[in-house]
Amino acid sequence: MGRWEPDAKGRLCAAALELYSEHGFEATTVAQIAERVGVTERTFFRYFADKREVLFSGAEALEEVMVAALAATPASTPALDQVAAALRAASDYFPPRELSRSRHEVITANADLRERELIKLARLSGALTDALRRRGVKEPAAGLAAETGMAVFKVAFARWVTSRGRRTFADFVDEALAQLHDLAGTTGAGAASGAH
Amino acid sequence: MGRWEPDAKGRLCAAALELYSEHGFEATTVAQIAERVGVTERTFFRYFADKREVLFSGAEALEEVMVAALAATPASTPALDQVAAALRAASDYFPPRELSRSRHEVITANADLRERELIKLARLSGALTDALRRRGVKEPAAGLAAETGMAVFKVAFARWVTSRGRRTFADFVDEALAQLHDLAGTTGAGAASGAH
Repeated sequence: MGRWEPDAKGRLCAAALELYSEHGFEATTVAQIAERVGVTERTFFRYFADKREVLFSGAEALEEVMVAALAATPASTPALDQVAAALRAASDYFPPRELSRSRHEVITANADLRERELIKLARLSGALTDALRRRGVKEPAAGLAAETGMAVFKVAFARWVTSRGRRTFADFVDEALAQLHDLAGTTGAGAASGAH
Repeated sequence: MGRWEPDAKGRLCAAALELYSEHGFEATTVAQIAERVGVTERTFFRYFADKREVLFSGAEALEEVMVAALAATPASTPALDQVAAALRAASDYFPPRELSRSRHEVITANADLRERELIKLARLSGALTDALRRRGVKEPAAGLAAETGMAVFKVAFARWVTSRGRRTFADFVDEALAQLHDLAGTTGAGAASGAH
């Protein structure tokens, strides 16, 4: 947990992402990944159940980091700002941008992996919803804030991994939140006056 | 396409949802569905490839209805209002609330069906993003508006199917949009001033 560090597991992860990018996910074998790092396949399987697991093994820890950041905001923090704190906390957790981009491209290119990623994000949304409820946020605000946060997450992540320069994931989260503010600034009010 | 009507396909759909609710999705057979409607299994397979297809056969038509509604808004309509028009258009397309609730419960109870539903919604989000882009909305606004629309969709749908009374799905869409307006009203501005 915490900042991404290139230990044995991290080096296996980096090598796997390189190979998936170079040869495609399907064509890459565990033997090739282990060989590139200079370890045995047995070492690979000490860290990952299979080659798909390399792409998703961080999901639970990411969820913990984000839920903890949400819970660490002051009790009076508006719901979407609590979610924003969770999103910004993810910034320190991701692998470096080039590796995160490789991961993003590998997943985008493969239908099974895209499904798995959708499931991961849906679980994350559920965890954030539950965390908001525990802090007294009522429905539908809790679910809406968490789901809206996932919209911000997806957009910010895709922009971050394809960006150049020094901007962090957290910077793109703030950019997307500002844009959401503009998008939702008039729409909701119009909808409300139309509906009531 | 258009309003939900209890033709042969609709009656098979209604009978299937009843049986899935009564006995569970796994335990229900195509023979039982056909028997309840008084048709042969062969008739069932004229409309649906399998019993899972009953739950998802409307996805493409729903997408068409929503994209058409988005494209029918005036060119100057803000992005999220275009998406809101698409969401409201879905209201006339869904099966009656009790059947939609059965469908929602059956899907929620089964991991495979939940995955399929996530994929359906991700495709819908992509279709709305593409439709916004065709109308000149730039990124990241297009993707953010579409993904935020899906957040509203999910929350509004879950509230509609569990509601009583006369409120339509479109009413819950407007409620969720108004809530989004409140949630995002201060957050984005705060994020922007914090980031720059």
